[in-house]
Amino acid sequence: MPPLPPKSQHTFEMIDGVMHVYHPNAQGEVELAHKPPGTATDFFYDLHALLKVQSYGPSKTFCHKRLLLTEQKFNLHVMLNADREFLEQKKAPHRDFYNVRKVDTHVHHSACMNQKHLLRFIKSKLKREPHELVVYRDGKFLNLREVFESIGMTAYELNVDTLDMHADKNTFHRFDRFNLKYNPMGQSRLREIFIKQDNLIRGRFLAELTKQVCSDLEANKYTMAEYRISIYGRKPGEWDNLAAWVLNNNVFSENIVWMIQIPRLYNIYHSNGTMKNFQQMLDNIFKPLFEVTVDPSSHPKLHTFLQMVIGVDMVDDESKPERRPSKHMRVPVDWDVSHNPAYAYYAYYVYANLYTLNALRVSKGLNTIAFRPHAGEAGDIDHLCTTFMLAKNIAHGLNLRKSPCLQYLYYLTQIPLDMSPLSNNSLFIDYHKNPFPVFFARGLRVSLSTDDPLMIHMTKEPLVEEYSVAAQVWKLSAADLCEIAKTSVLNSGFPRASKKHWVSDQYWLNGTRGNDIQKTNVPDLRAHFREDVLECEKELVRRGVVQARQKGRELKIRG
Amino acid sequence: MPPLPPKSQHTFEMIDGVMHVYHPNAQGEVELAHKPPGTATDFFYDLHALLKVQSYGPSKTFCHKRLLLTEQKFNLHVMLNADREFLEQKKAPHRDFYNVRKVDTHVHHSACMNQKHLLRFIKSKLKREPHELVVYRDGKFLNLREVFESIGMTAYELNVDTLDMHADKNTFHRFDRFNLKYNPMGQSRLREIFIKQDNLIRGRFLAELTKQVCSDLEANKYTMAEYRISIYGRKPGEWDNLAAWVLNNNVFSENIVWMIQIPRLYNIYHSNGTMKNFQQMLDNIFKPLFEVTVDPSSHPKLHTFLQMVIGVDMVDDESKPERRPSKHMRVPVDWDVSHNPAYAYYAYYVYANLYTLNALRVSKGLNTIAFRPHAGEAGDIDHLCTTFMLAKNIAHGLNLRKSPCLQYLYYLTQIPLDMSPLSNNSLFIDYHKNPFPVFFARGLRVSLSTDDPLMIHMTKEPLVEEYSVAAQVWKLSAADLCEIAKTSVLNSGFPRASKKHWVSDQYWLNGTRGNDIQKTNVPDLRAHFREDVLECEKELVRRGVVQARQKGRELKIRG
Repeated sequence: MPPLPPKSQHTFEMIDGVMHVYHPNAQGEVELAHKPPGTATDFFYDLHALLKVQSYGPSKTFCHKRLLLTEQKFNLHVMLNADREFLEQKKAPHRDFYNVRKVDTHVHHSACMNQKHLLRFIKSKLKREPHELVVYRDGKFLNLREVFESIGMTAYELNVDTLDMHADKNTFHRFDRFNLKYNPMGQSRLREIFIKQDNLIRGRFLAELTKQVCSDLEANKYTMAEYRISIYGRKPGEWDNLAAWVLNNNVFSENIVWMIQIPRLYNIYHSNGTMKNFQQMLDNIFKPLFEVTVDPSSHPKLHTFLQMVIGVDMVDDESKPERRPSKHMRVPVDWDVSHNPAYAYYAYYVYANLYTLNALRVSKGLNTIAFRPHAGEAGDIDHLCTTFMLAKNIAHGLNLRKSPCLQYLYYLTQIPLDMSPLSNNSLFIDYHKNPFPVFFARGLRVSLSTDDPLMIHMTKEPLVEEYSVAAQVWKLSAADLCEIAKTSVLNSGFPRASKKHWVSDQYWLNGTRGNDIQKTNVPDLRAHFREDVLECEKELVRRGVVQARQKGRELKIRG
Repeated sequence: MPPLPPKSQHTFEMIDGVMHVYHPNAQGEVELAHKPPGTATDFFYDLHALLKVQSYGPSKTFCHKRLLLTEQKFNLHVMLNADREFLEQKKAPHRDFYNVRKVDTHVHHSACMNQKHLLRFIKSKLKREPHELVVYRDGKFLNLREVFESIGMTAYELNVDTLDMHADKNTFHRFDRFNLKYNPMGQSRLREIFIKQDNLIRGRFLAELTKQVCSDLEANKYTMAEYRISIYGRKPGEWDNLAAWVLNNNVFSENIVWMIQIPRLYNIYHSNGTMKNFQQMLDNIFKPLFEVTVDPSSHPKLHTFLQMVIGVDMVDDESKPERRPSKHMRVPVDWDVSHNPAYAYYAYYVYANLYTLNALRVSKGLNTIAFRPHAGEAGDIDHLCTTFMLAKNIAHGLNLRKSPCLQYLYYLTQIPLDMSPLSNNSLFIDYHKNPFPVFFARGLRVSLSTDDPLMIHMTKEPLVEEYSVAAQVWKLSAADLCEIAKTSVLNSGFPRASKKHWVSDQYWLNGTRGNDIQKTNVPDLRAHFREDVLECEKELVRRGVVQARQKGRELKIRG
């Protein structure tokens, strides 16, 4: 392991829910080092303004028509150029859809294996390690055999049906039931034993499973994944536990990076007495991160682990009703009420703290951690307004179909959408009504991801299965599929060097300059077309802004 | 190899397109042994009658309503009993969807591998056997390297796109283009080299490929396939060539059985001078079969091969316009015109000859060969009327959605439909409009099959992929999937002993008596429900027939 970086002179303090970082200046005085661009109140003001704009009739008409136009342009492009695109692809030696890199941009780690895999794993453990003490219940330690005896089940009897983790008709519009599917055989103790990393066996089983999944990915070579793993914010030690699990078990792979998912469950912790106010949750989540960034030796394992963490996700059932935040919200230390803060409230505080943290990490030459929450899978349009302002990237974005203005803004700014239509099909919207193909045609930056292979997919190649269903149902061409795969790499948090190797030496540029067909198998014609349309829309908006300003001046002069 | 059965005393002779078989009786006189139940004229008469009945208004209303009712019953059954069904499945020890037997009931052998597999195979051959002489063109023999030089392509440059065998938007409603996809890189010489068994290398490459696919099936253990391989009827030696290919290359597997597909291409052979009349085609196809059945030593390899052949399929683009047969058609020897006989004409002669052949084979204790043509993928309703009268089983049956009477008849008689919705999606009907889920709910005997993995599927498990898409898009439950898998075994031509092992000791019985949940994972509740509904419909029809007869008598008496 390389030596730890030295402790820096920064100090920090949480004020009104946002970490303030200070450093001594040349005069020996302490001054504020980093600050997010706006306060919570600024943010809620802007949120309300954006909510107004996106529901303003004329802007809706404008955005809707522009989006229709980009869609028509795409259809026309395909009609005229599909053959030429395919010719380009044929000429790219060696490369085809199967050997371009695809990143599964949205997978929950504890559902990353398929159900057959998990079943086989459980059976083999029950056979080979029946005497392993795995859980503490009602005052005594139980070994694996005893646990299964208590459920009344033998290894032979076990099957995928008893496991009962697959999404079915009963999960549609029932996020709560979908969540219960994480319990093998409906038994939370089995979830604890097999798919938790913080348990009596210190997550050894989950680590072994993960390594098996990783070696499958490595064998496949062209498929990568960004696994979400939870930090709840219930206690300060969670980060250290998690880092120790990864490092002690050597859960490393070139094919994966980690994301942290924060479940929005303050109300649960409050109601069961775990915490008094929202501030405690923020402390538990963010203090260790600042500590380790200022002084890596304070949490050496976390220091190493954080370098593999590329983003923070925020998860929960978005369809739960919530109170729209007002412009002046109470600060987290005063949030001692029993109901859960709104999505936007959570998002602001995670964003603001990550902003300061990243500024600090950049100043120390460390990697940064992007804010990439779930948004717009269901629920109010507030969520998508919030993430438009705060997020680098979102998971889902389904509800953009309900707001042409936001959809157009996401298009213009090319905020990535990591979509999972098969997951949506189990939960929120039938497959053939999914807006993915429309978003794709319009040029939104969409990728395909699996979300929960354990509950959803049936083959041993869940990501290819996800692409396959999309290709079949929506009749996507080889150029379409390769474009989506390329987008998945760009949307991902894989390192710069990997993206250069997988996409192009100048992958961050738009159009043909950022596309190397020998690596992506995406026709230059396609890349050029996308840039062209986007530039046209941007130019239109720019001109509109100039005209509006002039008009404003004229009005002022006349007035 | 077991000793060949002795030559029998039968003689045979083709009369008016149908083989007549004779045997000496006790008195030493020669008499007719086997005869199909009706002549060609009988058949065409009945075909016209059936066409009339199925377009008769009142019968359409009746059948439509009965079908709607069975559908409603199914929906009600699922609403009330889904949980109980799932409970039954959970209790079946060890068994789940992944380890119940599924038969891919409709696959064309030369498209049975996926495109990535074929690509890898071609690349490895080009690397390891570049000097193998593989084809004879323009007066000289070419080796593999020379062939690829003539195309201007190296092993490195090859990719799935250059292979260009995947169905795409351009194949929709273009069966002709779909057929051209069988040519790797659009080159018929590559098709000849890699996916034909009758070529310069005597089909060695195709045999090696087939064995690889078979060993994948064997490793998977629970997936079986019925591969279609062509007999064209252009020359009498085709059967011997095919049998020699199978036997010399040891293309055997417990997981596959063979079907023969006859392309309906008389008009092509006639126009290029290969044959003068339709009788020649019948001779080429059927004479060898009767010869080998009467005297196995006449074609010893064919004798062995035929024991692995379980059916005859009849293939071609059904959407081609054709002339409806009149009641009196000219006999095959007089069919010397340039246009192709209609589907029904082909079907009758294949059926009638198979009928006689099977009777002969039964008398000798040999296996029989079922008539299982493609029907109703497109084209006139005649095709489905024809197969209702003649076929054991059909591939597709899509057009039953256009004829409620035929649909009801297929339901009552439980004629198996081996459907391939992903293939249909590439050719004839969008996935979410496919009638499969409606047919399934109504209780038609439907199975899922892949048709052409090479052109259609993307994962390494094409049949599971086919089930997966269906499960996702149509929200099929575990009970539904296992029922479809069980039906696929019953629809298949696998031996009696296998069906006993895979389905039930009394698999031929309806309802719970024919269902062993420990083998099929199909809930008895489901099996019972299906039997119940079917019996109810049959009883209704029986009563209707009795009433109609009585009414007929009364009318007569009164009259």
